[in-house]
Amino acid sequence: MSGEKAHFLDEIFHPKSIAIAGASASAQAAGWPARLLAFGYAGHIYPVNPRVDEISGLKAYPTVRDIPGSVDYAIFNIPARLAPQIMEDCAAKGVKGAHIYTAGFSETGKEEGKELEAQVAAIAKAGGVRVIGPNCMGVYCPAAGLTFGTDFSKETGNVSFVSQTGAGATRFVRLANDKGIHFSKVVSYGNAIDLDAPDFLEYLADDEETEIIACYIEGVKDGRRFLEAIKKCLMTKPVVVLKAGLTESGAGAAASHTASLAGSESVWDAFFKQTGAIPANTLEELVDVILAWLYMPYPKGRRVGIVGRGGGLGVIATDTCERAGLKVPPFLPETRRQLEEIIPEAGAGARNPVETIRGMSGAADFYAKGLKIVDADPEIDFILTHNAVDVYGERQASLQEQVVKAVEVLASTAQTLTKPIAVVLSAGEDFETVNAVLEAGKRLLEAGIPVYPNIEVAAKAISRLIGYREFSEKSKSAI
Amino acid sequence: MSGEKAHFLDEIFHPKSIAIAGASASAQAAGWPARLLAFGYAGHIYPVNPRVDEISGLKAYPTVRDIPGSVDYAIFNIPARLAPQIMEDCAAKGVKGAHIYTAGFSETGKEEGKELEAQVAAIAKAGGVRVIGPNCMGVYCPAAGLTFGTDFSKETGNVSFVSQTGAGATRFVRLANDKGIHFSKVVSYGNAIDLDAPDFLEYLADDEETEIIACYIEGVKDGRRFLEAIKKCLMTKPVVVLKAGLTESGAGAAASHTASLAGSESVWDAFFKQTGAIPANTLEELVDVILAWLYMPYPKGRRVGIVGRGGGLGVIATDTCERAGLKVPPFLPETRRQLEEIIPEAGAGARNPVETIRGMSGAADFYAKGLKIVDADPEIDFILTHNAVDVYGERQASLQEQVVKAVEVLASTAQTLTKPIAVVLSAGEDFETVNAVLEAGKRLLEAGIPVYPNIEVAAKAISRLIGYREFSEKSKSAI
Repeated sequence: MSGEKAHFLDEIFHPKSIAIAGASASAQAAGWPARLLAFGYAGHIYPVNPRVDEISGLKAYPTVRDIPGSVDYAIFNIPARLAPQIMEDCAAKGVKGAHIYTAGFSETGKEEGKELEAQVAAIAKAGGVRVIGPNCMGVYCPAAGLTFGTDFSKETGNVSFVSQTGAGATRFVRLANDKGIHFSKVVSYGNAIDLDAPDFLEYLADDEETEIIACYIEGVKDGRRFLEAIKKCLMTKPVVVLKAGLTESGAGAAASHTASLAGSESVWDAFFKQTGAIPANTLEELVDVILAWLYMPYPKGRRVGIVGRGGGLGVIATDTCERAGLKVPPFLPETRRQLEEIIPEAGAGARNPVETIRGMSGAADFYAKGLKIVDADPEIDFILTHNAVDVYGERQASLQEQVVKAVEVLASTAQTLTKPIAVVLSAGEDFETVNAVLEAGKRLLEAGIPVYPNIEVAAKAISRLIGYREFSEKSKSAI
Repeated sequence: MSGEKAHFLDEIFHPKSIAIAGASASAQAAGWPARLLAFGYAGHIYPVNPRVDEISGLKAYPTVRDIPGSVDYAIFNIPARLAPQIMEDCAAKGVKGAHIYTAGFSETGKEEGKELEAQVAAIAKAGGVRVIGPNCMGVYCPAAGLTFGTDFSKETGNVSFVSQTGAGATRFVRLANDKGIHFSKVVSYGNAIDLDAPDFLEYLADDEETEIIACYIEGVKDGRRFLEAIKKCLMTKPVVVLKAGLTESGAGAAASHTASLAGSESVWDAFFKQTGAIPANTLEELVDVILAWLYMPYPKGRRVGIVGRGGGLGVIATDTCERAGLKVPPFLPETRRQLEEIIPEAGAGARNPVETIRGMSGAADFYAKGLKIVDADPEIDFILTHNAVDVYGERQASLQEQVVKAVEVLASTAQTLTKPIAVVLSAGEDFETVNAVLEAGKRLLEAGIPVYPNIEVAAKAISRLIGYREFSEKSKSAI
């Protein structure tokens, strides 16, 4: 975007200086200044607190107006009733963006909270301060050193997240980080008295550092603008949307959470059909889709080759894939013939779903020899392996070692395949098995292979991603 | 059943002596004799192997006919082609039941396998030997010391499982054992050339040691008999059925797994509607329903009080519960008033879903004070708490300790409640968080509280169990 005028949100995502109003003296270790310092924010941090001189080793100022230098961004960590005064100060100081972390406004459902919120909004608007919040976690932008969770990944990625929920945003980032997913920009914007989902989406549509967008939306104030913003994003990148409050009681819960009007289920159904945005029902499902997008080049179609031990488990896997909208076609006779050669207990096992050889070392053996055979079948668009590690609990002196060994064979073989592959590792709740699966999962993610805890979530995520690609292609061919 | 003639399956589930044909000399540690000895089987074990004198410290016999004492039960661990001869021997010896572990019969889809299977079946029938299998794991009956997995629980429980799949049965038992679920009888019966699901179901219907039945079914040979057997069970106990092969490709997979005709989806839809059997799509779902039944007395209705931290997470939880067929009604004003008294950040948080106090210690505080308030609301039939432990990863020096402390407060408070409670603990994939959740989950299960990894599976399982109760009550009132 060189040559173009910088977007005002650039300064909010990458502020050069931050005032923290209500920086706590009593809980310094957990406060915003300490959080930003620990995360490596390199700009100026100005704690604001009239009762102390210093917080986390930084000079504190009685008010925002008293700060000597210019202030790009302010974080409000003060009781709601003080917000109007602080906003007056910010306006006077020329602050560009304010994140009101504080809750206790319209989401309380009380008149007092609503009036306070309207008052703050009016002051900000008159004073030219753009506002994120109130009642939210604000911005996580690792490239700028800005965060609301100190343990969030410092690595920059190509995923952005626009979220009306705060705890949900925290949870989402951690779930994603655990899967090796890193972020460009995350914003939790709560009650949205100024900046709302469409503002962030319009910005992210043009943001070259963002290649996929996830959204958690409770309500939309300007439906048309939201729709246009999503459409703009979808022209260049996938958008996965968790629309919360779609059920009747869920809508009530959304109203009390962020004072949102949730909208009817039929309106949102139409939204997904019309735009090609990818729907998700839970934070886990958002992560699942992003994981598939990140690590699994779009399969050419919906036809999956299923690989795993256990005849019944294969039948369940097949049903589960079909229910998720995938296809499990028979292999070509030539594929079956080749598979029968490497499976001692051949016959049944050589169909699709194909059974790996007995035991964890048998699985490894099969990965080395069999995956290439399945990969070569023209009737198959991608491979899904499933390994119920909990079945192999017995008689395994070194379960973790064996599982890791098997997935390492899988990972190295995957490099030689022409089609995408995804892996399911199931664990049950035995400590040893769970930890073996976690460790093996990390190895797979490091090798760029998406790994899921069960077939249902894997199949759903992959099917949704394929649905997005199908929609995009249809839209392009219609132009 | 005192005074009644013993059922022939009693001897198969509790054999006094077992011959193991094809007891392996080379893989003794992993062989059937070693497995039964390790599990504590107290009857006579007779290894049969013409090439050795002793296996696992037990005298081996060249053939079944050479065994000196009487033989109740025989396990076939021999190549398929030897099965007819061994069955002749069993018939001659007066063996009552045979478990053909061996695969390579009709499930191969080959004429040779089909003929061999028919031959064995004919010999068994003529000789009065009842057969489990072939191509299956056989019987797990902890009270009899009989097992196919050495690490299965030795504790006897009130759950029985009738399974056409072998690896699936192994997986199911381990998943269930991990949740503190123990078994009365488990049978994996594979190709079912003689004993089939209806035989086991008819027996379990009258079995006083079985209070809930789970089934994994691929195909049914005699639909009417299966239906009647399930109905007989359902007159006195719930039955959860995983019908595998319901999709088109799944049916194909089932055909090659156990040579089953899967039947159409509409037929099975009608089956569930007509009988009140509880449907499940995966082994995990089977376990989920049993867990709810075991630890959660039937709620009076579908109205759930949701308790957990995170406004957005509460909205997602509400949508998820409603989608699963539960209801999330508003609390009575008096309930809200009382909740607001104990929640410092009151207002929004006091509705249903209600938010616990900030942090893991806040959750514990809320469990101690707030659960009783929710429990007392007459609009609520049961409570579901959700705790996304992954949100609390930051700033927790001793996460596991804090989570365990919180659930211990939850467990002790639960004892004082008048309504059932279920708990969701979510973990992500961080090692520390996962292990904290596993440990906390064990404590809850020990306290008799069902615990689930996410709201979706919890809501689905509880809703299905309630559906069963509703069906039973309607059926009774119709009589």
